[in-house]
Amino acid sequence: MMQNGSFAQRLTEALGPDTALTRPDDIAPWLSDWRGIYRGQAQAVLRPRTVDEVARALALCQQAAVPVVPRGGNTGLCGGATPDARAQNVVLSLDRMNAVRSLDTIANTMVAEAGCILGNLRRAAQDANRLLPLSLAAEDSCQIGGNLATNAGGVNVVRYGMTRELVLGVEAVLPNGEIFHGLRTLRKDNTGYDLKQLLIGSEGTLGVITAAALRLFPRTDTRSVVLAAVASPAQSLALYELLFEQCGARLQAFEFFTGDCLDLVLAHAEGVQEPFAQRYPAYVLVELADTTDEAALNALLERVIGEALERELCLDAAVSASLAQLQALWKLREEISEAQRADGPHLKHDVSLPIERIPAFMDSMAARLRTLDAAIRPFVFGHFGDGNLHYNLSRPAGAPRDWAATHGEAVTDAVLDEVMRYGGSISAEHGIGQLKRHAFLAVKDPLELRLMREIKAVFDPAGIMNPGKLL
Amino acid sequence: MMQNGSFAQRLTEALGPDTALTRPDDIAPWLSDWRGIYRGQAQAVLRPRTVDEVARALALCQQAAVPVVPRGGNTGLCGGATPDARAQNVVLSLDRMNAVRSLDTIANTMVAEAGCILGNLRRAAQDANRLLPLSLAAEDSCQIGGNLATNAGGVNVVRYGMTRELVLGVEAVLPNGEIFHGLRTLRKDNTGYDLKQLLIGSEGTLGVITAAALRLFPRTDTRSVVLAAVASPAQSLALYELLFEQCGARLQAFEFFTGDCLDLVLAHAEGVQEPFAQRYPAYVLVELADTTDEAALNALLERVIGEALERELCLDAAVSASLAQLQALWKLREEISEAQRADGPHLKHDVSLPIERIPAFMDSMAARLRTLDAAIRPFVFGHFGDGNLHYNLSRPAGAPRDWAATHGEAVTDAVLDEVMRYGGSISAEHGIGQLKRHAFLAVKDPLELRLMREIKAVFDPAGIMNPGKLL
Repeated sequence: MMQNGSFAQRLTEALGPDTALTRPDDIAPWLSDWRGIYRGQAQAVLRPRTVDEVARALALCQQAAVPVVPRGGNTGLCGGATPDARAQNVVLSLDRMNAVRSLDTIANTMVAEAGCILGNLRRAAQDANRLLPLSLAAEDSCQIGGNLATNAGGVNVVRYGMTRELVLGVEAVLPNGEIFHGLRTLRKDNTGYDLKQLLIGSEGTLGVITAAALRLFPRTDTRSVVLAAVASPAQSLALYELLFEQCGARLQAFEFFTGDCLDLVLAHAEGVQEPFAQRYPAYVLVELADTTDEAALNALLERVIGEALERELCLDAAVSASLAQLQALWKLREEISEAQRADGPHLKHDVSLPIERIPAFMDSMAARLRTLDAAIRPFVFGHFGDGNLHYNLSRPAGAPRDWAATHGEAVTDAVLDEVMRYGGSISAEHGIGQLKRHAFLAVKDPLELRLMREIKAVFDPAGIMNPGKLL
Repeated sequence: MMQNGSFAQRLTEALGPDTALTRPDDIAPWLSDWRGIYRGQAQAVLRPRTVDEVARALALCQQAAVPVVPRGGNTGLCGGATPDARAQNVVLSLDRMNAVRSLDTIANTMVAEAGCILGNLRRAAQDANRLLPLSLAAEDSCQIGGNLATNAGGVNVVRYGMTRELVLGVEAVLPNGEIFHGLRTLRKDNTGYDLKQLLIGSEGTLGVITAAALRLFPRTDTRSVVLAAVASPAQSLALYELLFEQCGARLQAFEFFTGDCLDLVLAHAEGVQEPFAQRYPAYVLVELADTTDEAALNALLERVIGEALERELCLDAAVSASLAQLQALWKLREEISEAQRADGPHLKHDVSLPIERIPAFMDSMAARLRTLDAAIRPFVFGHFGDGNLHYNLSRPAGAPRDWAATHGEAVTDAVLDEVMRYGGSISAEHGIGQLKRHAFLAVKDPLELRLMREIKAVFDPAGIMNPGKLL
């Protein structure tokens, strides 16, 4: 290993002082995640403008065995883009590679560099009368390269799938500086192993994604929303089954939340209203969307909800009759996270389950929590149609404000253990990063871990890519 | 290496004489592909009933360094499931692993063993009021394990994607006998590299897929079809753009064929009729499908086709007014392959292109063919909505019947070279196998080939899995 000082100098000589930041003051803003939970060190921050600059930077780092931490919009929740405590780390930011290289409305593809802000890409697609369906709360800060690296989910997964399903091709740089020219826009290409699938979701541990070829879809500007009151998770799933059968691909969102979540929102959020004359055990927010014919879409939703009420697949229902009503219904769901934050510190668990097992999991998990501490307050919501639960737990009334810090580990261990018992996943959409690395290494099948480590060694034999994250 | 005789005995002792076939008469039917183009040798054919039997068989083969050729329904077109000339080969057929392990209409998943016939799975889904969208000509013979191993395409790709996009989980056995327990049914699982993606499309070179967890979709029994006459490939794509925007997810098929293809069908097929009063340069068959409301679907198609005629995105159009008419229109497209067979020997090319470049490719390719032999008769059709062309070439009028054998290589080299020049793929949906291995190794990026070989060594360090195929 070379001295840090001299290696930083070499980076500066190779890439220029504007691309290679090495002064402590210049580096400081790049050393923590946006929530301030993780913080690390680095000897340099690189801000390349081209794939060739990325290649030169990585080749230099590999020669010197210097760890590289790729960084997109820094909006991740698991610390995957924050360097660890080693002083020799190099942070490689893609923010200056932010060109849309092409957008084609015949092929319905967009080729975007890694540093493009997701929201900008969504607007570029919209302007071309197309939809880029990837949509998440951080979309005006997160970068598409990071979305690929973490296989981001978001609110449209039930219809369009995770980021992986939206990607046709990837351009990336391997740690030895070789460029992976996989930026194909083909819908069909059966020529060997689909290598891009390894880069997607690899959290920067295999190489640096520099551009992506993305699928675009027709705009579905016609929307219709209903809030249905349900007796239980099991009834929610019966309602889901009916909607799935009758509405087909129009089903764009199927979001579940408990009556406790609604109470929290009504207590903490501004400008929200009780949706029904009485409180119900749980609620489901359903959105249909289509390319055409608003009247037909509303009629379909009303007919199906009528059938659901008749067959007792829900207890009550409020259909949006205007855009304002639609937004008011969505607000009840969207304000849950903020209301829980206002309520105080809590434990978040982004988990997924086989959809049909959610009701049994929820019963079993509730019983297990009671044995830990009967006064824990669960606020459970999530993307039911994807099997994705945000199984969040707030401290018992009267418990000290540091309850999450002192009791969190045992509670989280119990939640993740129960998720695994039901065949679920300990990370539905946020990935592993630093946050869940310990749990990941503990629960993942040893054969899968061995294969992942050996594949990592194929791409990154020197082990410089994002050490301490994921594997 | 052990003597063949004694190794075959060990297989018989380990698995029983009913599972391990070793008599030449018993083996003979398993040594060629269904078209009789490829033929090889083997010392044994194994027909295991359980994943544990597969594991025992593979462990024995790896110990003895015996090549293993996994075999599904044997319907592939590239010789991927046919053993090569080595006498020590073992053919491993999955045909007895044919149980549907589960089918869930809440989660919309089906878990099926590798030997299940695709058509049976489609019918099982249909009986449960669900759609398994994978559909291809061989569906009543091919097996789902082979569909995964080759990432099969078929007629519904424009809407539902390739096999890869329908797979939630995979169970497989590695060559050392370890079982990969990846049969998860989760829609979201962001925990490390997505290893199943490597097995899908690996053509039996990494391990043996023993079961798959598949996504099911709502049934879309309401269908509406139009045959549109177009002046050119470019006009077809303008029509595609309009349909994509206006019909959204309902667009289920967008099939192109030239006027020459129609001539061939009218000349050779029974019970087909000229669809228009005059002949046009080319045709597009469009199918919309939905879960509901036939009248609305027909009205949508008529409105959009009306707009297309007005905007001169097509020259003429015939909309199906009955199921019989719908089937008659489809027959014009479906009979092309058979009509071309009846016409005589020809060269088939299953290639894909960036969709927006198809018109330029077709012009350029036609010019190039004219320099080779102006009398070659191209019959071009395919899944335009996927960029997938069947660029088939029949012999010049009056040329000898062995024209394809004597002139084929130069012509095929020209087609594949032109496809690569336009950023396409030399195998859209049929894979590589033995047929395209030479071309694959010649055109694939050296970096991708190196990564594939190193990944192959991770899964199959002894190199026993399907040697001589793909890599």
